[in-house]
Amino acid sequence: MTISLDALDAFRHEARSLDRADPLARFREEFVFADEDLLYFDGNSLGRLPKRTAALVARSVEAEWGGRLIRGWNDGWVDAPRRVGDKLARLLGAGPGEVAVSDGTSVNLFKLAVSALRARPGRRTIVTDALNFPSDLYVLEGAAALLPAGHRVVAVPSRDGIAIDAEDLYASITEDTALVSLSHVAYRSGFLHDMQAVTARAHAAGALVLWDVSHSVGAVPIDLEASGADLAVGCTYKYLNGGPGAPAFLYVRRALQETLQNPIPGWFSRHEPFSFGDGYEPARDLSRFLVGTPPILSLVAAEAGVDLALEAGIGPAREKTLALGEFLVRLWETLLETRGVTLRSPREAARRGAHVSFGHPQGLAVDRALIGEMNVIPDFRPPDVIRFGMSPLTTRFIDLVEGVARFKRVLDEERWRRYAGEGPAVT
Amino acid sequence: MTISLDALDAFRHEARSLDRADPLARFREEFVFADEDLLYFDGNSLGRLPKRTAALVARSVEAEWGGRLIRGWNDGWVDAPRRVGDKLARLLGAGPGEVAVSDGTSVNLFKLAVSALRARPGRRTIVTDALNFPSDLYVLEGAAALLPAGHRVVAVPSRDGIAIDAEDLYASITEDTALVSLSHVAYRSGFLHDMQAVTARAHAAGALVLWDVSHSVGAVPIDLEASGADLAVGCTYKYLNGGPGAPAFLYVRRALQETLQNPIPGWFSRHEPFSFGDGYEPARDLSRFLVGTPPILSLVAAEAGVDLALEAGIGPAREKTLALGEFLVRLWETLLETRGVTLRSPREAARRGAHVSFGHPQGLAVDRALIGEMNVIPDFRPPDVIRFGMSPLTTRFIDLVEGVARFKRVLDEERWRRYAGEGPAVT
Repeated sequence: MTISLDALDAFRHEARSLDRADPLARFREEFVFADEDLLYFDGNSLGRLPKRTAALVARSVEAEWGGRLIRGWNDGWVDAPRRVGDKLARLLGAGPGEVAVSDGTSVNLFKLAVSALRARPGRRTIVTDALNFPSDLYVLEGAAALLPAGHRVVAVPSRDGIAIDAEDLYASITEDTALVSLSHVAYRSGFLHDMQAVTARAHAAGALVLWDVSHSVGAVPIDLEASGADLAVGCTYKYLNGGPGAPAFLYVRRALQETLQNPIPGWFSRHEPFSFGDGYEPARDLSRFLVGTPPILSLVAAEAGVDLALEAGIGPAREKTLALGEFLVRLWETLLETRGVTLRSPREAARRGAHVSFGHPQGLAVDRALIGEMNVIPDFRPPDVIRFGMSPLTTRFIDLVEGVARFKRVLDEERWRRYAGEGPAVT
Repeated sequence: MTISLDALDAFRHEARSLDRADPLARFREEFVFADEDLLYFDGNSLGRLPKRTAALVARSVEAEWGGRLIRGWNDGWVDAPRRVGDKLARLLGAGPGEVAVSDGTSVNLFKLAVSALRARPGRRTIVTDALNFPSDLYVLEGAAALLPAGHRVVAVPSRDGIAIDAEDLYASITEDTALVSLSHVAYRSGFLHDMQAVTARAHAAGALVLWDVSHSVGAVPIDLEASGADLAVGCTYKYLNGGPGAPAFLYVRRALQETLQNPIPGWFSRHEPFSFGDGYEPARDLSRFLVGTPPILSLVAAEAGVDLALEAGIGPAREKTLALGEFLVRLWETLLETRGVTLRSPREAARRGAHVSFGHPQGLAVDRALIGEMNVIPDFRPPDVIRFGMSPLTTRFIDLVEGVARFKRVLDEERWRRYAGEGPAVT
């Protein structure tokens, strides 16, 4: 006990020093901390509230909607999906006119997957991996089921539940592959695909590539253009701090924008939508992948979050989350590994996104004890994984020390016992 | 000139009396009127801001997101699509568990149209009408194009550009009809379909029926259950005052909920979504038609608007908009008809929704002059239609008198001339 207390103190000392040197430390002042004692490690699920967002949303409600009414559409709402998309493009290594905010991630994934499958007639396989977010797999299955020619989804298995072996993935990409669709960072383990290498392999086989960057955007550098990626989707409520259910985005490489067809040809996807013309004529650019009227209040909040990520810069954000991750792994090695906690993320920092996952046989009960008794919020993913997400703009090194200290207490004092046997998490 | 001034004064006198007797008059106090001189007749496109909405959205941003962070999902966000749906059900003649808030109108139309087409194998026709909102037609075409068997959309033409002849519609419904999909109220003319009669005819032919109630919900009584309707979609930003781009809703008759399949099987559509299970298993109820994470900030605003509509009651709302419509038609007969303005809505009140449309050869220029010089906001729909939407909770009879007086001035003083020849409206 004495040893680990000493170890904790040493970590605390180091953490304070690292926090003082953190070039992004000033960004904490941009966010609301309603409960100073709360240790929040779930910014990879719902990012914190930026202070400016409340004022911007209030202005949008009162001055724009209340004051301008329908004229708000001409004042800027109509262009908002593309305007915020152009900002997002700077985080994605995309050009102006290649990214738009629209719908939710699953709807965007559906639109782009169907459009890609129809652009590769004769090929009938979608390649993905078993670490992909479950609903990405559902949506890909749904898209395949709509196509006439008996399409199927091949999910490359993971050998260790943590990573996908590149050779396994490459071996599954064949001349029958129409589309390779993967999550850039795996939601459970944090495993990070090599976007450039995978895209090159898929292109060599004649397939299109669609990346879900929900778990990387804002925390991991992404270069869609340099990687050659064809398509991408992602959400804005994780590391981009866009708010609960903030709208998602989509990327379509400029060269494909006049080739692919949106299967849900809504009003905002039409050439000259306000002509209310008979007969559908797709927009001649990225707008053809929009659908309907964008949710302005949610979009305003998302824009504020994107602005903050741009102000911080993705380079410093990645540097910081890499350092936080390595620090957390050292804390685990020193304080948690001997207590039955396993590392369920890649050990090598460069192969991880911005969250680190741990396994424990009583993972759900431990997670509940952390939340219910320790004022620590990680999150739990079945069957036994506890995720610690590190937000580049708000997480401190000292937060990790205190979070692991409380984690250790839950184990040492067996505080998880009263939560054991509660069955799977429902919400 | 003297005669019409006298006529205007008589209308003013009558309007003040009608406004005093209006049982919904007190609801104006619930709304923001930032510019008291503005005459706003576009609540059928974007309803006004309820005063309570600003406070509710701020609470959602600050207390829920800022204070509760990810716990907000357990506190109520997860259930919001169904909770607000159950409220909407009371405006739609639907039961609890039959309506959910989700996505946008076009995405919902797509999901339900595709699911209906797949439930009627062997039938290859979608019947709609030429007065349907253009993007509903686009989306139905898009849905048909995805099905393997050469589906096609038949849009029954209108004989007068105002109404659909019931016999024309019925004649087009055959044993090949999989789906009849119509807008309950036509966006341009305000023509109101007989939901019960059309649904019965479609069912007699073995087809499913999908109504878009965007232009009727909150203003026109709807009884989905009594009419036998199978499916419906609609938006919340028109007569429901839910805010710019507020989320849409969908209705699936309970008996069909375990039969139809959502073609976009997102996370929120799964049985036990938080199990993050491998393999898709659809929810066993209406939730299977949800897709992904709902946009909470926009949804909170929508709920406030729905609450107000429920407090007012759909019976009084319809009575008032019928009276407003008849009053407006009388104003037109007295003051506008002789000045080259035609009525482009059904003359019979019972066959109209809550807006009345007028035609003028210089419709676009007249609309622009009204907005730019007269502080009157109707809206323009190509080729030559000016719509006056009457919101049951905010439009007064005196507003109609003053609106028509300003309309008359634009014509008498030919103020539209400086806006003529500007070409079609782009935004």
